[in-house]
Amino acid sequence: MSADPGETRPWEALERLILAGSRSEVREFLDRIPVDDVVLAVSRLTDSTRARLAERLTPERAAELVENIPDAQAVDVLERLEPERSAAILERLPSDEQADLLGDLSRSDADAILSEMSAEGADQARALSSYPDDVAGGLMIREYLTYPESYSAGQVLENLRGNADKYRDFVVQYAYVTRNGRLRGVLRLRDLLFETPGREIREIMLPEPLSVPELFGLDDLRVFFERHPFFGVPVVDSQGRLVGIVTRAAVEAARADRSDSDYLKTQGIVGGEELRTMPLFLRSRRRLAWLSVNIGLNILAASVIALYQETIAAVIALAVFLPIISDMSGCSGNQAVAVSMRELTLGLVRPNEVLRVWLKEVSVGTINGIALGVLIAGAAWLWKGNPLLGVVVGAAMAVNTIIAVSIGGVVPLVLRRLNMDPALASGPILTTLTDMCGFFLLLSLATAAMPLMAP
Amino acid sequence: MSADPGETRPWEALERLILAGSRSEVREFLDRIPVDDVVLAVSRLTDSTRARLAERLTPERAAELVENIPDAQAVDVLERLEPERSAAILERLPSDEQADLLGDLSRSDADAILSEMSAEGADQARALSSYPDDVAGGLMIREYLTYPESYSAGQVLENLRGNADKYRDFVVQYAYVTRNGRLRGVLRLRDLLFETPGREIREIMLPEPLSVPELFGLDDLRVFFERHPFFGVPVVDSQGRLVGIVTRAAVEAARADRSDSDYLKTQGIVGGEELRTMPLFLRSRRRLAWLSVNIGLNILAASVIALYQETIAAVIALAVFLPIISDMSGCSGNQAVAVSMRELTLGLVRPNEVLRVWLKEVSVGTINGIALGVLIAGAAWLWKGNPLLGVVVGAAMAVNTIIAVSIGGVVPLVLRRLNMDPALASGPILTTLTDMCGFFLLLSLATAAMPLMAP
Repeated sequence: MSADPGETRPWEALERLILAGSRSEVREFLDRIPVDDVVLAVSRLTDSTRARLAERLTPERAAELVENIPDAQAVDVLERLEPERSAAILERLPSDEQADLLGDLSRSDADAILSEMSAEGADQARALSSYPDDVAGGLMIREYLTYPESYSAGQVLENLRGNADKYRDFVVQYAYVTRNGRLRGVLRLRDLLFETPGREIREIMLPEPLSVPELFGLDDLRVFFERHPFFGVPVVDSQGRLVGIVTRAAVEAARADRSDSDYLKTQGIVGGEELRTMPLFLRSRRRLAWLSVNIGLNILAASVIALYQETIAAVIALAVFLPIISDMSGCSGNQAVAVSMRELTLGLVRPNEVLRVWLKEVSVGTINGIALGVLIAGAAWLWKGNPLLGVVVGAAMAVNTIIAVSIGGVVPLVLRRLNMDPALASGPILTTLTDMCGFFLLLSLATAAMPLMAP
Repeated sequence: MSADPGETRPWEALERLILAGSRSEVREFLDRIPVDDVVLAVSRLTDSTRARLAERLTPERAAELVENIPDAQAVDVLERLEPERSAAILERLPSDEQADLLGDLSRSDADAILSEMSAEGADQARALSSYPDDVAGGLMIREYLTYPESYSAGQVLENLRGNADKYRDFVVQYAYVTRNGRLRGVLRLRDLLFETPGREIREIMLPEPLSVPELFGLDDLRVFFERHPFFGVPVVDSQGRLVGIVTRAAVEAARADRSDSDYLKTQGIVGGEELRTMPLFLRSRRRLAWLSVNIGLNILAASVIALYQETIAAVIALAVFLPIISDMSGCSGNQAVAVSMRELTLGLVRPNEVLRVWLKEVSVGTINGIALGVLIAGAAWLWKGNPLLGVVVGAAMAVNTIIAVSIGGVVPLVLRRLNMDPALASGPILTTLTDMCGFFLLLSLATAAMPLMAP
């Protein structure tokens, strides 16, 4: 099942070259192997070898590398290098990426690196990294073209020509026109093709352009880009000053990152990221943080069972159905959690619409509860030849399915209203409550039916 | 907890206008309410009212609407309208969106609509909808500029000027230069600003541009865009002919959609989408499809318990620990599943590296298994005052944690190698196997310890 033993592993070859080869050999090797092998190989190096690689590349190549590897590894590289070298690498990254990495560095490392950057670059990076990740300010780039409205078409062309190299990596299709820093219009560069050089750009620009405030949220940005076929939207501060551009691609990328991290959180990867190249004890500690909360909640839920030991002693078969009720309620409830999370993200439900969601879930839960109840009742009856055991197990399953979808549908909305993270907390809350209800239902029904049922 | 009863709900107001108001009243209403209210309001209409709304709008506005609502609702609208009207709406959508919706329509509806489209439009839509969604061909757009290499800069400018209206919605920054349909170069439109009109574009273009084949996969496209700061990449067929452009934004959007749908699938929403506006029986049936498989697997796993009824009868306390072992193994295993899914997506692990993943998981599992085992052993000892019960429960928990992370880490890789969907199948496989192992471990250890333990 494992990799072909004879196969040369690219990360082993790369490691040998980093430790023993020349700089040019390392660079040639990276140019030669397929693109996806580069990411894989670099991610498999030890942290110190990866930092040594970043040291041996030109700042440009090192910046490209840092941009492509997972953020956790990029941060580690920047922490290990001399601040001067980290600053040189950071300055070659797009401004939104700079801000993300600086935000993840420890305070002292970030300050050391910022002090090695140009004053202007450091100020900009500080400003950008002060925004939350999921608002326009945190997603915007600073690489855009802006001209005062008094410029002529000819002056703009001259500037474009004179800075062709600097602007090469800008995604340039529009330039933004300002008066005293305030956004006044958008200039399609294409329109310059048809203009006389002397004409002022204020006459060519599209006036009153749409813009968004710095704290405009990710979900609102998605709605904005669904509504408008734009490539990007300018971001303005409270005084109407242009401070950056958010691209459609940045919004889509942030949405994908949030989906990924939500998925990891629902499965109990609390930090939102774990790579198997991370140190063993870090991985273990992070996973245990989640597991130890869960084992506490599990013991709490199972304590309901402890109250009914006499009932179980009388009808041992109940022990078989306890885990089934627990698992199936978790499954039903998690379906409802997933639909609520999805509808919240799409803006198809508001966090205050608890009643609407509950009514929708109760109807599905009733149908599915009856179906599952009949199934498990039939299985119990067949197995023990005792129809009353079937009725008890089936009724507990049916009622608990309705409870599970009610809790599962509503909990994400309530957590969102409380400004808590529904991805992280919905699951444990759901399973603890439904386990307690399920154990209580099955065992109290069985206790009540005992006089009729005891074998 | 529910919405303010006095609040006017935008979808109710919209519904009244659609049923009783004039066309212009409907349009004014949609222009007046906030953007995110439009999506919410339209999604809350009944299917027939939503179709009537699309009928009352101009094809342009209806196209905008269809683009913004969830795909399932958009498909329903297209199915309800006259094919002629659906065709008029579809023709105003970007080509990738056209292809997505046509692919989701029933064969007969799609054919009826295609027959009402222009021959050229229908051919293009048919060609695009034949690609899988997650390869370059399925993600590309056809709205791009292309010129033969013999064109002069002046001819290109003239064409741009003459078609300014048609090109308005194109995201135009580059034009693609072809010879007999084959991609030869990329022309930065900006470069035209500095050229004499008579110069041939083959001398201005960037030669030998990077391109990707039609079946280039989504993950490879992500790696491509991580490596290159491009806005888009041309797609060529096996003969080197230019067939479309994949934008960075389209790749990020597809990645986000896949993450969302993977998350829904891991939680048992099988179709990859459920909206609470869908018909009750459809929602119920889809969820039951998943639940009924799970209840079968649950009964299978619990049948292990049935083999040990005598042991449980002797030590009733074991019934309390069965659901705890089952739940905790699920938690530990799902963490490993999530990390494997994530590493597969990022290209940081190959599906054949089963041994590597297993070794990494066993080490974490050993530490966490011992920690959880000691915790639960302590709880058992405290509760019953029986240290041997603690040892039995703790040992079962420790060993089963190792088993759970091993299965959880490895199953997604194996499913991927078998070309099955790890998002959908990993969870049920994991919990069934770990439940069986956990029940067997706890109960067989207890049976072995019985002579020493019985109360």
